[in-house]
Amino acid sequence: MRILIINGPNLNMLGKRAPQHYGGQTLESIERTLSREAQELGYELTFFQSNHEGEIIDFIQEETSASAGILINPGALTHYGYSLRDALADSGLPVVEVHLSNIYSREDWRRHSVISSVTIGQVTGFKAESYALGLTALTDYIRSQGK
Amino acid sequence: MRILIINGPNLNMLGKRAPQHYGGQTLESIERTLSREAQELGYELTFFQSNHEGEIIDFIQEETSASAGILINPGALTHYGYSLRDALADSGLPVVEVHLSNIYSREDWRRHSVISSVTIGQVTGFKAESYALGLTALTDYIRSQGK
Amino acid sequence: MRILIINGPNLNMLGKRAPQHYGGQTLESIERTLSREAQELGYELTFFQSNHEGEIIDFIQEETSASAGILINPGALTHYGYSLRDALADSGLPVVEVHLSNIYSREDWRRHSVISSVTIGQVTGFKAESYALGLTALTDYIRSQGK
Amino acid sequence: MRILIINGPNLNMLGKRAPQHYGGQTLESIERTLSREAQELGYELTFFQSNHEGEIIDFIQEETSASAGILINPGALTHYGYSLRDALADSGLPVVEVHLSNIYSREDWRRHSVISSVTIGQVTGFKAESYALGLTALTDYIRSQGK
Amino acid sequence: MRILIINGPNLNMLGKRAPQHYGGQTLESIERTLSREAQELGYELTFFQSNHEGEIIDFIQEETSASAGILINPGALTHYGYSLRDALADSGLPVVEVHLSNIYSREDWRRHSVISSVTIGQVTGFKAESYALGLTALTDYIRSQGK
Amino acid sequence: MRILIINGPNLNMLGKRAPQHYGGQTLESIERTLSREAQELGYELTFFQSNHEGEIIDFIQEETSASAGILINPGALTHYGYSLRDALADSGLPVVEVHLSNIYSREDWRRHSVISSVTIGQVTGFKAESYALGLTALTDYIRSQGK
Amino acid sequence: MRILIINGPNLNMLGKRAPQHYGGQTLESIERTLSREAQELGYELTFFQSNHEGEIIDFIQEETSASAGILINPGALTHYGYSLRDALADSGLPVVEVHLSNIYSREDWRRHSVISSVTIGQVTGFKAESYALGLTALTDYIRSQGK
Amino acid sequence: MRILIINGPNLNMLGKRAPQHYGGQTLESIERTLSREAQELGYELTFFQSNHEGEIIDFIQEETSASAGILINPGALTHYGYSLRDALADSGLPVVEVHLSNIYSREDWRRHSVISSVTIGQVTGFKAESYALGLTALTDYIRSQGK
Amino acid sequence: MRILIINGPNLNMLGKRAPQHYGGQTLESIERTLSREAQELGYELTFFQSNHEGEIIDFIQEETSASAGILINPGALTHYGYSLRDALADSGLPVVEVHLSNIYSREDWRRHSVISSVTIGQVTGFKAESYALGLTALTDYIRSQGK
Amino acid sequence: MRILIINGPNLNMLGKRAPQHYGGQTLESIERTLSREAQELGYELTFFQSNHEGEIIDFIQEETSASAGILINPGALTHYGYSLRDALADSGLPVVEVHLSNIYSREDWRRHSVISSVTIGQVTGFKAESYALGLTALTDYIRSQGK
Amino acid sequence: MRILIINGPNLNMLGKRAPQHYGGQTLESIERTLSREAQELGYELTFFQSNHEGEIIDFIQEETSASAGILINPGALTHYGYSLRDALADSGLPVVEVHLSNIYSREDWRRHSVISSVTIGQVTGFKAESYALGLTALTDYIRSQGK
Amino acid sequence: MRILIINGPNLNMLGKRAPQHYGGQTLESIERTLSREAQELGYELTFFQSNHEGEIIDFIQEETSASAGILINPGALTHYGYSLRDALADSGLPVVEVHLSNIYSREDWRRHSVISSVTIGQVTGFKAESYALGLTALTDYIRSQGK
Repeated sequence: MRILIINGPNLNMLGKRAPQHYGGQTLESIERTLSREAQELGYELTFFQSNHEGEIIDFIQEETSASAGILINPGALTHYGYSLRDALADSGLPVVEVHLSNIYSREDWRRHSVISSVTIGQVTGFKAESYALGLTALTDYIRSQGK
Repeated sequence: MRILIINGPNLNMLGKRAPQHYGGQTLESIERTLSREAQELGYELTFFQSNHEGEIIDFIQEETSASAGILINPGALTHYGYSLRDALADSGLPVVEVHLSNIYSREDWRRHSVISSVTIGQVTGFKAESYALGLTALTDYIRSQGK
Repeated sequence: MRILIINGPNLNMLGKRAPQHYGGQTLESIERTLSREAQELGYELTFFQSNHEGEIIDFIQEETSASAGILINPGALTHYGYSLRDALADSGLPVVEVHLSNIYSREDWRRHSVISSVTIGQVTGFKAESYALGLTALTDYIRSQGK
Repeated sequence: MRILIINGPNLNMLGKRAPQHYGGQTLESIERTLSREAQELGYELTFFQSNHEGEIIDFIQEETSASAGILINPGALTHYGYSLRDALADSGLPVVEVHLSNIYSREDWRRHSVISSVTIGQVTGFKAESYALGLTALTDYIRSQGK
Repeated sequence: MRILIINGPNLNMLGKRAPQHYGGQTLESIERTLSREAQELGYELTFFQSNHEGEIIDFIQEETSASAGILINPGALTHYGYSLRDALADSGLPVVEVHLSNIYSREDWRRHSVISSVTIGQVTGFKAESYALGLTALTDYIRSQGK
Repeated sequence: MRILIINGPNLNMLGKRAPQHYGGQTLESIERTLSREAQELGYELTFFQSNHEGEIIDFIQEETSASAGILINPGALTHYGYSLRDALADSGLPVVEVHLSNIYSREDWRRHSVISSVTIGQVTGFKAESYALGLTALTDYIRSQGK
Repeated sequence: MRILIINGPNLNMLGKRAPQHYGGQTLESIERTLSREAQELGYELTFFQSNHEGEIIDFIQEETSASAGILINPGALTHYGYSLRDALADSGLPVVEVHLSNIYSREDWRRHSVISSVTIGQVTGFKAESYALGLTALTDYIRSQGK
Repeated sequence: MRILIINGPNLNMLGKRAPQHYGGQTLESIERTLSREAQELGYELTFFQSNHEGEIIDFIQEETSASAGILINPGALTHYGYSLRDALADSGLPVVEVHLSNIYSREDWRRHSVISSVTIGQVTGFKAESYALGLTALTDYIRSQGK
Repeated sequence: MRILIINGPNLNMLGKRAPQHYGGQTLESIERTLSREAQELGYELTFFQSNHEGEIIDFIQEETSASAGILINPGALTHYGYSLRDALADSGLPVVEVHLSNIYSREDWRRHSVISSVTIGQVTGFKAESYALGLTALTDYIRSQGK
Repeated sequence: MRILIINGPNLNMLGKRAPQHYGGQTLESIERTLSREAQELGYELTFFQSNHEGEIIDFIQEETSASAGILINPGALTHYGYSLRDALADSGLPVVEVHLSNIYSREDWRRHSVISSVTIGQVTGFKAESYALGLTALTDYIRSQGK
Repeated sequence: MRILIINGPNLNMLGKRAPQHYGGQTLESIERTLSREAQELGYELTFFQSNHEGEIIDFIQEETSASAGILINPGALTHYGYSLRDALADSGLPVVEVHLSNIYSREDWRRHSVISSVTIGQVTGFKAESYALGLTALTDYIRSQGK
Repeated sequence: MRILIINGPNLNMLGKRAPQHYGGQTLESIERTLSREAQELGYELTFFQSNHEGEIIDFIQEETSASAGILINPGALTHYGYSLRDALADSGLPVVEVHLSNIYSREDWRRHSVISSVTIGQVTGFKAESYALGLTALTDYIRSQGK
C-alpha cells in the first residue's frame, strides 16, 4: 500500500520560510517523521516536491495506478492551480489537503482553495503536525473503504 | 489539564443527520472515543453541546480559567456566530475548529468560517475522525507551548 | 396527525408591531383561527413561539418524531438563522415558510431567506391569512404524500 | 367581480414540463379547478396565457378597468420582465404572484423576482395548489378592501 | 425628411400612469405637440408605440431606409432590451433617448440603460417636454451632419 | 428526420449588420448553404427567424414533437432570454448554440449566455461557417444517440 | 423615568477583554458610573447583560412599556442581530447605540451595524466614556421630545 | 428672474478639449448663445466656472436667494462631488444637469452621476446644444411651477 | 490648551439645511454653546468652516503644532475626502468625528466614512448635541493621555 | 501548410477522465482522426500535449514561424493561463479554442476563458468532435485569408 | 524646455509625515535635488504644491502651453481626483506619476489610481528617489518624441 | 555584489511583441544596456528568462544566498503567479518590479499585480527604460541599507 506525499512550490525551503507561519522544521525532517508513522501504519510513502505545477501533475498521472491515496500541501497553487485540481480529481484517489499555516487568518486571497472541493478533507494550521494528522486521516479513510 | 469539547447546534442529532455528510456515529459515541484518547494523552475532557449560541458563550466564559484549550465544532454557527467568535478570542485559550463534513465541497455559504481566524487550526471533512485528529493537534500544541 | 406551528423572534408582539407590515391581529388570535381550520382538516396543532433561535431548534428536535409537518414564520431569523435552517432540514419533515409582510417590497436584506431552500414552499405577504393558506398547503402536501 | 388569471411563457406546456418542478397537471386542469373555486367565492375568472411579454401587457391594459384583481404566474419573465412589472403596477389592481416550483431551491437566477415588489404577496412551491391558495388570498384581500 | 418617434411598453397609458413620475399628458397629446414642432422644423414624423420588443424591432428594420433619425422612449426596455439595442445600432441612424421621469432618482435598476451607449444623447426627467427637447436635439444633429 | 434552424432578433438583417462582427452573407445565403449540407446528411431543415422572443417560443413548442434537434443563434436574447431558455430545455431536444461573432472578445455583457447551460455545445466566432459546423455537430450527436 | 442599559454578548467580561480595544474598566464599574450620572439627571437605570440574543429580546419586550429609552451596546450582535434590530424597532423607544472600541478601524465586518438604522444615534470609540456620553445624548433627546 | 449657469472643472478649456467628445465651441461662445436665448425667454443669466469644488459651493450658497434655478455641467465632479450635490440639494432651487458628451458611451466611471438624484432632469450628449436644451427645460419647469 | 473645531462643506448653512436631518440651530449658535462648554473645561476653541477641502487641509497643517486635538464634522467630505483623511492622520492629534444626522439611516453612500479609521471615535445623530458630546469625549481623551 | 494541435494539462489522460464530460476516446485516437481529416484538407499537423504551461509557451514560440494556425484545448489553463494567452496573441497566428465538455454547464469557474478574447472562435461541448469541427473552422479561416 | 513638478495634498509636510512610508526628506530637499538633476539634463523645472485640487488644475491649465511635460505626485487625489485626471489628459503633455510609498502594499483603497490611465508610466515606492527616476523617465520620453 | 535580473513568460520575444506596448528593443539589447549601467554602479548582473513559473522559482531559490537584490518583470505571471510571489517574499531580498507597458491603461485584469505587495517598488510604462530605472532604484536602495 503506497501513499503519495506531494509538496508544492517553495515548500522545499521549509526551515528557512517565515517560521511564524510555517514552523521551523525542514521538509526532510517532516518526511522522516512521516516515514516512521507510515511504517507503523503499514504504508509505504513516495515523496515528491516541485516548484512546477506541470511536474506535480506529471507525477500524479504516473503514480496514480500504483497508489492508494494522496497527501498534498499545494503551497500557493492552492489558490489558482486549477490544472492540479483536475489532475487530483482525475486520479480517482482519496486526497487529503494539508497546510502548515492557518490560511484563514492571513491575506484574503489565501482563504480560498481551488483544491478542497476534490478532497475528502483538510488539515490546516498545525505546522509540521498537519502532515502527520493528515496521514492518519488518509490511512483511516482508505481502511474504512475496505482497501 | 482540562480541555473543553464544544459542539454547536444540531450536533446532538449526529447519527440521525444526513450520514453522507456527517457519518453514522452519535455524539455520545464520538465523546467516548475522545475520552479514551484523552486519557492516554493525560488530559481530562469536559463535554458541552448546545443549540444556543448564548449558552456556548456562557460555558466558555465560565470554564476558561480552569482549562488548557478548546476543541469546537460550531455547527452552522461557523458561518454567522460572531459573538461566539469573540468569546473564543476573549478566552485566550488555544482553539481548534473541527468539522465532520468537508464544508468546502457543499453550499457556497458553508465555505466561509467566521471562527477560523481566531483558531490555531482546522480539521475538516473526516467525519468522527476530525475530532480525534483535532484533539491530538490541540494537545500537541499545548505541550509545545510548554504548558 | 400533529403539525408544529412555530413563530420566531418578535412575533409574540403581533398586534403591537407596525400594522402596515404585519396587520392588526395578535398571535393568539391567529392561533385560534388556525386551530379551527386544523380541526376541520383533521389535524392537531402544537404552537410554539420563542425569541431564542436555540429554543426553536430544541423544540424542533424534540417534537419531530411525533409530528407530520412544520409551519414556520422564522421572523428575522429568516435572514441569518443557518442553525435553524439545518434543524429544519435534519427533521426530515415537510416545512412551509410563511411571512405576514411582503418581504420582497421592504429593505434589501429582507429579500433573502436562508430557510427557503429546505422548505416545500412559501406564502408571503397576506398578513394573518398567510398562516391559514400555509396550513392548507402543508396538509394538502402531507395528504399527497400518502401520509 | 372579475379576476384575471395570467400565465407567462411555457406554462401552456404544463403536464409535459419537468414534473419534479412543476407537477403533473395541465394548465387546462388547473384552470378548471380555479373556475370551480371562483364560482363558490362569487368571482368570474378570465384566463390568459402567452409566451409573449407584449401580449400579456396588452391584455392587462385592456382588461384592467373591468377587473378586481390579478393572479399571475409570470414564468421566466419573473426574473427580467421589467415591462410586465410596470404594467402590473400601472394597473392599480391588487396582484398575487404564484409559482408552481420553489424558485428558492433551484438555480440562483430564479431566486430574484422583479415582479414581487409590486404585488401584495406571493405563493411559491405548491405546484398546482399554489394557484388555488393564491386565488383565496387575492379574493380575501379584495373583500378586506371593501370592494 | 422623416423621423421615427418610438414609444416602448406601457407608454400608451400615459395620462393614467403615476403622474408624479410621468406627468399628466396622454401620448396622443404629446404626439400632437411634436407634430406641430416638427412641421416648423421641416420634418415629417412617424409615430409608433408597442408593448412588444419584437414589434419595435420589426418597425425599426422596416422604416430605417426611409428615415433620418430615431427619437425613442424605450420604457422599461431601457433596462434589459438588448435586442432593441442591437436593432438601434444596426439601423445606422442617429438615435436620441428620452425619458419622462428622472430615472436616476428612482429604483436602482432604473439607473442603468442598455440603450444609451448606441445613442447620440439622452434627455431625461422633463416629463412631456423631454420629447420636444429630444426632437430639437435630433434635428439639429441631423442638420449638423449635413443631411 | 427534421431539424429546426432558429435565428433570433436582428439576424434577418445579416448582410447589412456590421460585417466585421457578422460577416457579409445574408441569412438567406446561409440557409441555402445549410440546406445543401443537410440534404447530404439526410436531414430536412425548417428555418425560422423572428425578432419576438414569444414567437420563437411558440415555434419551438409547436415543432418539437416532429423534430430531432435545434440549431439556434439566439441573437441578443442569448444574454437575457430566460423564457427562451426554458422553452429549449422543455423541448427535450438536443440544442446547439451558434454565434457568428466571437462574443468573448466584444462587450462584457455579451460574454454571458443564459442559453448555453441547456445546450449540448456551442460554436462561436466563425461567421456563417458557425452554422455549418453547428449543424454537423448536431447531426453527429443525434446519430450517436442512436436516433 | 426609567432607562434600559443593555449590554450584549461578552461585555460581562470587560476588564479582561483586550484592553487596547475595550479599555480596562469592568462592566460593574461602568454601571456604577452611569448610575451616578443618571441620578443627577433624574433617571432610574435598569441594567441588563446577556450572551443570548433571545434573552435581550425578551428583556426589551417586557420592559418597554415602563421605560423611556434604551442605551445599548449590542456587542458582536451589532453585525448580525436582525432579530434584536426588529425588537428595538418594535419597542418604539428612542435607542442610542454605543461601542467601546472604534469599530471603524478594526476588521471589515465590524464596520457594518444592522442596528444603527433604528437608533437615533451612535457613540463609538471612547471606551467606557461612550456609555456616559450616550446616556447624556439619550436623556437630552427624551427631554427634547417633551417627555 | 435670474438663472445660474455653472460649469465645473476643465470646462473653461472648451474649444481645446478633445472635440470628438466636447465639440469645438468655447465656453464663451456657449455662454453668448445662452444669453441670447435667455433674453428671449425673459431671464437673466449669471455665469460661473471654476476648477474648485469649494468655489462652486460658495457661489451656489451666495446666489441662491436671488435666483430661480440652476443649470450645471459639473464636469468630472459629476462622479464624486458629494459636497456639490449637498449644496445643490440645500439650495432648494430646481437644478438641470447637462453634459456635452454622452457620458454613457465612454469609460465606466463616467456612467454614474452623484448629482442626478437631486436634479429635475438631465440633458446629455448634444455638445454645446445640451446647454440650450437644458435652459429651455429649466425655464419651462420654473414657469410650470407658477413662479 | 487649544482645540480645533472644523466644519466641512455646507455646514455654514445650518439652520437652513433640511432640519429633519440637521436640526434647527445655526452654526454660530452651536459654536457659542461649544465655547461656553470649553471654557468650563479649561480649553480654548478655534473655529473653522470651509466648503474647500484644500482650505481645511491648509488650516489643519498650520494649526496642528499649537493644538491639542481636533473635533471635525467633515460634511460630505466624510465619504470621499481621502486628502483630508491623510491630513488628519499626519497631524498626529487625537481626532473626534461628529455628525448631526444619523448617517447610518440615510442613503447608502452616507454609511461609509473614509475618515473614521484615523479618529479615536465618532458621535453621530444627535444634531447640535453631537458637537457637545464630541468635545467632552475629546477633552476627556486628552486628559487621559496626561496632556 | 502546417497547423499546431495543442492540448493542455490532463488531456493526455483522455479515455480515463470522467467520460460523461470528456467522452471515451483517447488523445491518440483523436489525433489519428484529425490527421486523416487534415490530409484531406491538405494540411500537416504537429501535435503537442503538456501539463506545463511553460512548455506549451516554449512550443508556440518555437513553432510559430513555420505554422499557419493553432488549434488548442487549453484544459484548465483556459481559466487562469494569462501567460499562455499572451503567447497565443504574440504568435500572430489564427487560434481556434476547443473544449470537449460544455464548460458553460459545469462549475462557475469553468465559464470564464482568459484565452477566448485572442482567438477567432470557439467550439465547445461536442467531445472528440469539437477538435474535428475546430480544425475545419481553422483551415477555412486560413483559406479565407488567402494564405 | 520646461517641466512642471506638481505635488498634491499633504506633500508639503514631507519630513514630518510617517517616515516609514514617505522617507525623511522634506519637499524642499527633494526639489533641490531635482533642480540639480534637471540642470544636467538641460531642463528648467517649475515647482508647484497645493492642498487644493482646483489650484492644481488651474496651474496645469495656465502652464501647459509653455511646458514639455508633467511629473506629478497627486497624493491622495490619486484615488478620487477625476477632475485632476481630466486636466492632465486635456493638457496633451506627457505625464509621469510618482509615489513615495509603495501604494500597493498599504490600504486597499490606495491600490487604485484614477490618474494612471492618462500617464505614460509610474514610479512607485522608492521614497524621494521616485521623483528623480520619474524625471529621468520623463525627459527620456520627451527626447524620444523628438522634442 | 550580484543582482538577479529576471524576466517572465514571453519576454524573450521582445522586439517581436506588439511594439506599441513593449517597444522595439530585444531582451538581449536591454540586457546589454543594463550590464553597462551595472558595471558603472559596481554590480554584477545574472540574467534569467523563462516561460515556466517553476523554473523562475527554482532560480530564485538557488541564487538568493549569493545575491543582493532582484529586478523582475514577471510578464503575465504578475497577475496570477502566487507561487512566484511567495518565492520572492521567501528570498528576503529587496525586489523591484518593472513593466515595459503601462499596465494601468490596458485590460482590467492587467491592473492587478499579485507581486507588488512584496516589492519595495515598481517602475511601469517606460518600455526598455523601465529596467534601467528599476536597476538604479534597486542599487540605491541596497546602498541605503548599508550593504
